[in-house]
Amino acid sequence: MELHPRDPDFAQRARASFAAQTVMQTLGMSMDHVEPGKVVISARRHERLFQQQKFIHGGVLAIGLDSACGYSALSLAERGLEVMTVEFKTNFIAPAGQDKVIFTGRVIKPGRRVIFTEGTAHGLHGDDMILLATMTATMTYVDLG
Amino acid sequence: MELHPRDPDFAQRARASFAAQTVMQTLGMSMDHVEPGKVVISARRHERLFQQQKFIHGGVLAIGLDSACGYSALSLAERGLEVMTVEFKTNFIAPAGQDKVIFTGRVIKPGRRVIFTEGTAHGLHGDDMILLATMTATMTYVDLG
Amino acid sequence: MELHPRDPDFAQRARASFAAQTVMQTLGMSMDHVEPGKVVISARRHERLFQQQKFIHGGVLAIGLDSACGYSALSLAERGLEVMTVEFKTNFIAPAGQDKVIFTGRVIKPGRRVIFTEGTAHGLHGDDMILLATMTATMTYVDLG
Amino acid sequence: MELHPRDPDFAQRARASFAAQTVMQTLGMSMDHVEPGKVVISARRHERLFQQQKFIHGGVLAIGLDSACGYSALSLAERGLEVMTVEFKTNFIAPAGQDKVIFTGRVIKPGRRVIFTEGTAHGLHGDDMILLATMTATMTYVDLG
Repeated sequence: MELHPRDPDFAQRARASFAAQTVMQTLGMSMDHVEPGKVVISARRHERLFQQQKFIHGGVLAIGLDSACGYSALSLAERGLEVMTVEFKTNFIAPAGQDKVIFTGRVIKPGRRVIFTEGTAHGLHGDDMILLATMTATMTYVDLG
Repeated sequence: MELHPRDPDFAQRARASFAAQTVMQTLGMSMDHVEPGKVVISARRHERLFQQQKFIHGGVLAIGLDSACGYSALSLAERGLEVMTVEFKTNFIAPAGQDKVIFTGRVIKPGRRVIFTEGTAHGLHGDDMILLATMTATMTYVDLG
Repeated sequence: MELHPRDPDFAQRARASFAAQTVMQTLGMSMDHVEPGKVVISARRHERLFQQQKFIHGGVLAIGLDSACGYSALSLAERGLEVMTVEFKTNFIAPAGQDKVIFTGRVIKPGRRVIFTEGTAHGLHGDDMILLATMTATMTYVDLG
Repeated sequence: MELHPRDPDFAQRARASFAAQTVMQTLGMSMDHVEPGKVVISARRHERLFQQQKFIHGGVLAIGLDSACGYSALSLAERGLEVMTVEFKTNFIAPAGQDKVIFTGRVIKPGRRVIFTEGTAHGLHGDDMILLATMTATMTYVDLG
């Protein structure tokens, strides 16, 4: 499915919004790529992200996935609209013990009321990409005028 | 449903595991209450937790909910078993603009293979409790021995 | 939370819509109760609903839950609006071997864009109610006018 | 990911189990294809499957998806094990007004405790495949000995 942005400045808008999310800095996440309907975010392994077994906490994976999914929806939004997450669902497939995690969010079905998105979190282990978690997330647009 | 712990030291074990999760300190979360099958965690509003509109990021709510749900499952685990989240699903009901958020996790159905849990996140606004988000989470026990 | 209907004929409207769903007749389901924000549907054990072990198929539980949740949202809708399910999530807690299943759907948070609902399926075993499955479902209103 | 069956009779076993599910006959579903970790089921448009607008009811899509996902897990099971659905989550993307619906279930991650699966429901409209709904489902194996 080819997706078209309604705002030509979609990438700059996504990056500016991401930069305004202090929690992304708290967790050391960066926005690596923005295209219409797809966003990639990454995080490096760091001690401040761990659960009790020194893996990155599953909830951190969920934040990264939610962010990638949400910004994939924002990349298709009209100027002036914000994205809000209605709900998300995450499956935890493998422990996150790798040095870097890549979060990819994609719009599956754009809509006026709700936007269906999906995300994957992969751990980089050498040249391998290990699937750590998947997300489906429903987004909506709000006009914060 | 009355739930019975299999390990008399369940509360101490939950608190020790929580203390070992560095991400809980990163996000400023504390474990306020542990009973068999129920755990309460809280977080205070802090600038490092924000999304772009200065609400606490929805993913932070998800981490708190996941943690409360997971430790409610741990409170019923045999000694030596750890809890892993299989999957969770979160609904975002209201923005988190309050000074304090209370995360409550409960075991709905204990089991050997899977443990069904549910959680709620409430924002404290004066004497009111505003429902911010709900979670259903499936947990499993693993023997890391 | 007290919920107020916007259409005084909400109960009649829910019953008429339910009666128009042929699949409810195929599965032998009946609408037993309608109040603002809450609907109860039931199904009797019947051979045509079974999975391979002669329990009622989990998907049948999901249909009953979805229907109870959807009509709980319809009970709060303005005249002329229809309800569509955006997504639902079901947990399967116990096998459905009882003679009768009761599906209860409730609106947790009404809204203009999305309506959050929750449902439970209980099997009647003598005087006991066995929790079989739970659902959270997101609904939306559409104007088919 | 290449998936290997542990029971050489996996396809026959899946077909025999499917044939024993009376609800599949009630809904007019057929099992069209079985391979290790992937199953395809289909249903034809029929008046007994409708919601109030004469589309196939979303819950019917969920049953077909659950069945395709569950049998994809069964195709990898050791002889003697049965599959039970722990939970599933369905997104409803487009109304089901087509003559035929194809349900495809796939194992994403096999495991001893839990098996992660995903499914898609497509409506056939001439030569087009319209994405109607998606599912993620968690399965577990049980020994009914």
